[in-house]
Amino acid sequence: MAVHQDSFRVRTEGRGTINITRQVEEVVVASGTTTGTCHVFQHHTSASLLVTENADPDVRHDLETLIARMAPDGDPAYRHDMEGDDDMAAHARAMLTHNDLTVPVGRGRLILGTWQGLFLWEHRYAAHTRTLTVTVHGE
Amino acid sequence: MAVHQDSFRVRTEGRGTINITRQVEEVVVASGTTTGTCHVFQHHTSASLLVTENADPDVRHDLETLIARMAPDGDPAYRHDMEGDDDMAAHARAMLTHNDLTVPVGRGRLILGTWQGLFLWEHRYAAHTRTLTVTVHGE
Amino acid sequence: MAVHQDSFRVRTEGRGTINITRQVEEVVVASGTTTGTCHVFQHHTSASLLVTENADPDVRHDLETLIARMAPDGDPAYRHDMEGDDDMAAHARAMLTHNDLTVPVGRGRLILGTWQGLFLWEHRYAAHTRTLTVTVHGE
Repeated sequence: MAVHQDSFRVRTEGRGTINITRQVEEVVVASGTTTGTCHVFQHHTSASLLVTENADPDVRHDLETLIARMAPDGDPAYRHDMEGDDDMAAHARAMLTHNDLTVPVGRGRLILGTWQGLFLWEHRYAAHTRTLTVTVHGE
Repeated sequence: MAVHQDSFRVRTEGRGTINITRQVEEVVVASGTTTGTCHVFQHHTSASLLVTENADPDVRHDLETLIARMAPDGDPAYRHDMEGDDDMAAHARAMLTHNDLTVPVGRGRLILGTWQGLFLWEHRYAAHTRTLTVTVHGE
Repeated sequence: MAVHQDSFRVRTEGRGTINITRQVEEVVVASGTTTGTCHVFQHHTSASLLVTENADPDVRHDLETLIARMAPDGDPAYRHDMEGDDDMAAHARAMLTHNDLTVPVGRGRLILGTWQGLFLWEHRYAAHTRTLTVTVHGE
């Protein structure tokens, strides 16, 4: 058993999802781990992580539509609005999705279903640089 | 420290929750791990995992009522609707719940609260066979 | 590689969030782990965990506002209402947030972003004692 840890940055272009599966898998391959788990963590309160369908971009378009209903931009009830209409909404969207994900590792690779991809979701309007830490446990 | 990994399949009968606590715990017991963690991952974009109340089935009935409001079947705003009214709703319900869960292991068992059970949630109308991978880390 | 496990209790004062970052980090420091992961699990079906903004309490006030819309207290559709208006709502709020969190450990500390804190969220009106288990894997 060993632990391997690495981090990488993703430059977002404002609100939207970015497929990070390849970058995460590169950490797994570099670790030489055959069997275990791969943990992904993002270090921001206005972005989040998601496992979802990797083929049809309309899926992520529709997820955006739905989460915007649940956590509306510029809701009049918000007290926390210093940074604009997307500020509090971003924290709420992060709450409803995931700050960290763990994926099993087998035969030296992420074990994902055919249609599963790992995504970073930028919830702010503006472009940001987001930092992720990947930790692989296994043997 | 060692890692143990196994997988199993669950046959669903269409939309609804299935208690998988026993099947997950069998992997923990077979691993011989005394202290550590047990990670459960499901490999589909239209099903998900949940820790919730294991006693009164009305709880899961009411969770179904609420999530159907948040991620309505056949919403006119959906672009992704090739496989029917439950297609996009299933991806959204998966987003709002969990693709993976980790539970502590102590004294060779899952450490769960009295009322906590682990559930697989099928979000499609039709019956499916769902695959799960369980990875136990510990000593 | 080694595993360290400890538990602690939090006394809540009814519905609301409590910052548990310090208590979790104390387990990491006591474990002597330099690099790895820290898993936090709470053992109740009417409380949950959250990583969110640790500076402005208005953020958590607004999260409360939004989740109360998604999982209303005393909704007439609920079948499970034996323990009062907050009973079923608490289970639903737990579903929409997180039962467990994992945070990377580096240089013997939790690796958190500047604005990230770990919170226990009590969803019942009444004060409760909540138990958490922390498991640290690493070397």
